[in-house]
Amino acid sequence: GTAGMEAGIACAVPRDKKVLVSNGGKFGERWVKVAKAYGLDVDEVKLEWGTALEPELVAEKLATGRYGAVITVYSETSTGTACDLEGIGKVVAETDAIVIADCITAAGALPLRTGQWQIDIVGAGSQKAFMLPPGLAFLAVSDKAWANIEKIDAPAFYLDLKAYRKSVADNDTPYTAPVSLIRGLEVALDMIHEIGIETIWARTAMLAGAMRAAAEALGMKVFSRRPSDSVTGILLPEGVTDKQFRGTLRDKYGCWVAGGQNELKGKVFRVSHMGYVDPVDTIGLVAAVEY
Amino acid sequence: GTAGMEAGIACAVPRDKKVLVSNGGKFGERWVKVAKAYGLDVDEVKLEWGTALEPELVAEKLATGRYGAVITVYSETSTGTACDLEGIGKVVAETDAIVIADCITAAGALPLRTGQWQIDIVGAGSQKAFMLPPGLAFLAVSDKAWANIEKIDAPAFYLDLKAYRKSVADNDTPYTAPVSLIRGLEVALDMIHEIGIETIWARTAMLAGAMRAAAEALGMKVFSRRPSDSVTGILLPEGVTDKQFRGTLRDKYGCWVAGGQNELKGKVFRVSHMGYVDPVDTIGLVAAVEY
Repeated sequence: GTAGMEAGIACAVPRDKKVLVSNGGKFGERWVKVAKAYGLDVDEVKLEWGTALEPELVAEKLATGRYGAVITVYSETSTGTACDLEGIGKVVAETDAIVIADCITAAGALPLRTGQWQIDIVGAGSQKAFMLPPGLAFLAVSDKAWANIEKIDAPAFYLDLKAYRKSVADNDTPYTAPVSLIRGLEVALDMIHEIGIETIWARTAMLAGAMRAAAEALGMKVFSRRPSDSVTGILLPEGVTDKQFRGTLRDKYGCWVAGGQNELKGKVFRVSHMGYVDPVDTIGLVAAVEY
Repeated sequence: GTAGMEAGIACAVPRDKKVLVSNGGKFGERWVKVAKAYGLDVDEVKLEWGTALEPELVAEKLATGRYGAVITVYSETSTGTACDLEGIGKVVAETDAIVIADCITAAGALPLRTGQWQIDIVGAGSQKAFMLPPGLAFLAVSDKAWANIEKIDAPAFYLDLKAYRKSVADNDTPYTAPVSLIRGLEVALDMIHEIGIETIWARTAMLAGAMRAAAEALGMKVFSRRPSDSVTGILLPEGVTDKQFRGTLRDKYGCWVAGGQNELKGKVFRVSHMGYVDPVDTIGLVAAVEY
């Protein structure tokens, strides 16, 4: 996922314009670092953790200067927060800039209509809603973004997207690819097709809604002010340590939930609603949390 | 493998000195392209396919100017040719330059004593003698190369070796890693340890020697003038097409051999001696070739 997003940033962002990068968590922070590593003129939007980039702000920013790209995280996993990607797509589509969206934990979980929403680069990875081991990154690239890529001399070799476009046309990859994961991907995509992506989106939203309602019923607080249906971050109850809480869930009930990252370390626990997580898992977890 | 080598080239080659890159086949050609993609001052040694970079030439070159690194392929898979990596290591160790060796098809097949031979960066991949699916690259990095890496602002993010050094100290990786392959690697390394790497080197050399002798006994010619024990490239007999030859081996005898790459396409077939290839496979292939 990281390498895939980096390929988009390195190959498709015009060098002579500014790039707007939203940073509302650990992953937004990463894309700021990547853009800076390639010497881009970064305009960083620092968001309070738990809030999201708003289309209005993007419109305001783009009106003030020459921007070539907007980089945003659709579902910021560190805070369990989703942005209005459709709205951002609409705003950016009216300009010459492109949108690069980190959809690593969103693709396959949150509604995503790449073409209709005019998202120029969608980055995703195998290890989240695609239900595979990690090791594969995917990118969807619009014609508008390809036009940029064709104009830019890639400052890298392995991540040069031009080579991939050429190979994909022959149903191949330019360098030796993790074929075992690609075979697994075929199976995962068949499963997803059979269920139907809209059904998966609805089920994910239902599970996340149930988790939020359950947390509140148990007197706990959802961290994000704009919760993502992909992952829910819940503040640990007063007086309960992360080690106690997650340790008990794991050892006594066999439930694995994630801890907080960076500034949320020890303050929240995070529950995934992606991929093969089903209602039984979710309701079971709620019962275990109630312990 | 490609990304691993690229990380070494991007992070460890000094910017203010020249880099000697040997190109005697498809993979040497690739490292020239990578070094150029990072704007390095490349001195390319073009070798006739089937010949190898000689330590004497490296010594001569290094004496004439300020070189920061030498990049060479230990076993050039496209031509089945190995270089004298030990000799090259010795020559370069006497200077301030570092050696970056593509050992992707050599590590685990040809003798390789990284420390003793003073090879500064060894690049390898999971899919050859490590007997795993593709998807993992490994690098061994010397103190001399780390000193370069610490001094250089990496022109990349995912391939920045500083981040890996930091994570490896905590037995972790900086970004989500292909864990399924890492678990497989543990098993493969246990197998290799059990047999003993020297035994594997000797067996590989024996199989390659047998293949070369068999080819000559059958009136065929080994392509390389300095054959690698990792893979043998054999010229197709006069009047036999690649399609006929490899098709028959595959369809009639279930033997898979590789074809030629780039300028050797349709002119040679290539037999691997790496990993789980054993004497029965090799003798069986000889019998099938005799058909």
